[in-house]
Amino acid sequence: MKVRLEPAPVRGFRFAGVSAGLRNEPGRLDLGVIAADWPVAAAGVFTTNLVKAAPVIVAHQHVRRGRLQAIAANSGSANCFTGNAGLKLAHDSAKALAGALKCAPELIAPCSTGVIGRAYNLARYRSGIREAVAMLGPDRLGDFARAIMTTDTRPKTASMVLELGGAEVTIAGCAKGAGMIEPKMATMLAFIVTDAACAAPMLRHTLARALPASFNAITIDGDMSTNDTLLLMASGAAGNRPLRGREVGAFEAAVAAVADALARELVRDGEGATKLVTVEVRGARTAAEADRVARQIANSPLVKTAFFGCDPNFGRILMAAGKAGVALDLERLEVSLGGIKLASRGALRVGALERAAAQMKKREFGLLIDLKQGKGAASIMTCDLSFDYVKINAEYTT
Amino acid sequence: MKVRLEPAPVRGFRFAGVSAGLRNEPGRLDLGVIAADWPVAAAGVFTTNLVKAAPVIVAHQHVRRGRLQAIAANSGSANCFTGNAGLKLAHDSAKALAGALKCAPELIAPCSTGVIGRAYNLARYRSGIREAVAMLGPDRLGDFARAIMTTDTRPKTASMVLELGGAEVTIAGCAKGAGMIEPKMATMLAFIVTDAACAAPMLRHTLARALPASFNAITIDGDMSTNDTLLLMASGAAGNRPLRGREVGAFEAAVAAVADALARELVRDGEGATKLVTVEVRGARTAAEADRVARQIANSPLVKTAFFGCDPNFGRILMAAGKAGVALDLERLEVSLGGIKLASRGALRVGALERAAAQMKKREFGLLIDLKQGKGAASIMTCDLSFDYVKINAEYTT
Repeated sequence: MKVRLEPAPVRGFRFAGVSAGLRNEPGRLDLGVIAADWPVAAAGVFTTNLVKAAPVIVAHQHVRRGRLQAIAANSGSANCFTGNAGLKLAHDSAKALAGALKCAPELIAPCSTGVIGRAYNLARYRSGIREAVAMLGPDRLGDFARAIMTTDTRPKTASMVLELGGAEVTIAGCAKGAGMIEPKMATMLAFIVTDAACAAPMLRHTLARALPASFNAITIDGDMSTNDTLLLMASGAAGNRPLRGREVGAFEAAVAAVADALARELVRDGEGATKLVTVEVRGARTAAEADRVARQIANSPLVKTAFFGCDPNFGRILMAAGKAGVALDLERLEVSLGGIKLASRGALRVGALERAAAQMKKREFGLLIDLKQGKGAASIMTCDLSFDYVKINAEYTT
Repeated sequence: MKVRLEPAPVRGFRFAGVSAGLRNEPGRLDLGVIAADWPVAAAGVFTTNLVKAAPVIVAHQHVRRGRLQAIAANSGSANCFTGNAGLKLAHDSAKALAGALKCAPELIAPCSTGVIGRAYNLARYRSGIREAVAMLGPDRLGDFARAIMTTDTRPKTASMVLELGGAEVTIAGCAKGAGMIEPKMATMLAFIVTDAACAAPMLRHTLARALPASFNAITIDGDMSTNDTLLLMASGAAGNRPLRGREVGAFEAAVAAVADALARELVRDGEGATKLVTVEVRGARTAAEADRVARQIANSPLVKTAFFGCDPNFGRILMAAGKAGVALDLERLEVSLGGIKLASRGALRVGALERAAAQMKKREFGLLIDLKQGKGAASIMTCDLSFDYVKINAEYTT
């Protein structure tokens, strides 16, 4: 099973991305549509931030029934903290796409990303939707991925093809990220579609299985968006027989692989990020404790600036681990950076620092902490904290 | 009661700061001593990070008895993750000062700050201690404050004089900070001495009262040091009669005012900080909920970069508030920045943004969120996240 970081056609789905003039940048794609040829099985997960954007509320309502026909996603406005008018705007947006596709509004998931506290122009949105529906094509997932970008520097897509239930099944997806990213029990704006025949309960289960090691295992700045959304739709156009036994596992693993590829792309393109660092904690008493230690390290500004400076700053790693509220045995724990053991048996291996610093010049490396207390393990992908993170976020307009 | 940001002589105490050669910077002060003329009442609070430096363990043991005669504090090495050798080093350091002052080692609190995982040279430390003791003087608190600086750009001192129990009482202190600062239940390296006559239990109570609104109400980067220490010593040389009733409250308030002044100084001089922002949450159901919301906002990298950019980014404030796990009523909450109301009744006051941006150009301003749910309130002081925070921390050597 090989995931490619490119879009792929998925039978039963068409895509579009257009410039609807929702942003103040003429010509920039800002509205995307993913449409199934008929109502299909769907599942979704949403932000756990207690401030939820209007489209999150509406999309959640609609996908709960297990069926969707299309997704409309815009950038330029998050439609969050927009009160009842924002809720109406989200409903009207769903209706606009439903009208153009001639389906029920409850089959549409509206999604928005961009500035909080600002609505978008409904008239422009409607005419954008008409244009997008007229342009829908099987090869335009890349355009859709472009339309949902905010401070992303590039579109993020992933796809894979596998044999399943006697048919060739394609899974393809896209995501947008860049900042305000520590999804926890939810995820970023991400969409995955497949032509596999799969009922909604299995899709929900598949998302639940795919999340912990993909979108929920990344952090860019520890900030959690109000609009995080992940939707999964399955058209059934591949014509496979119902999946069972190992096939279910294979399907879940494939969706998880696509989700993981998209999640990694989000971190690689984190605001100002120059490095992707996988923080792995092993040997904790429980997986939950391992996760707490890993997240404290992955979110520590002092650790992240040290990553940026290619500085194997063991003290900061230890400090961050100590914040997690997990008792550590300093005499036993081992820390490796880029494959170089920095500390073991309670002592820093001073000679190792220089070699670790050399490894940190790579664009991707790992930080491994073995607590030597048990079998609990967790892994979090993070990026460094650079001048450009500050630059991008000090200058991004309200 | 007026706190001055300057050192002051305190009867019964002498101070020194010398260059012991513990850092690789010839001539830079790196070892300080605060010595009482006799064993005096003392109290301390220490980091709650589960990774504790050796001097924290030793100082905690020694101050537990309620009496200290002196403090020895060095920069250049945190003496943390230094194993049993580090523990011995902390004990030997206490012994060195005890020998020079001719008192029991249990009356000495050793404190260290600097790089983690590295010990300091004991021979240099000992000769530095001898030199410092020979130089002890009532006017040298400023030298001491200088000796404990790491990435601080200036020494931080505060003092006040008040009438108490029929005597003139002086309270003076100093602190070092700069990075790795979100003390929570503990505090940074900070020392406060007074000539008031005060028993150890009252000093402990005074610290417990002073902490929540001072050292525990600040954050620079949400990172918690392994060496956080706050010590309070009272010589009794002021000759006041035992404090009671309102006098106890007045003493506590005075110590709290000195602690608050030092805490503010820490934030003003936070690594790369250009602004001090007081995040105040009112109208929460409980003080604990208010504190959670305030800390999420005060620690959000997206909010802090917006402060740096003078960007009244309401969306990020809302996003950060929503992460706190506290249910918010978006239709009712009010948000003011620099005294300008940004949002009320569920809507952003767009015209206010420009005026708020102008207020944010000041070096100090407030962010007020009224949740309109109850009477719980909390206030956290934070700073902005600037290019220089990244620069300082990407370049600070391991």
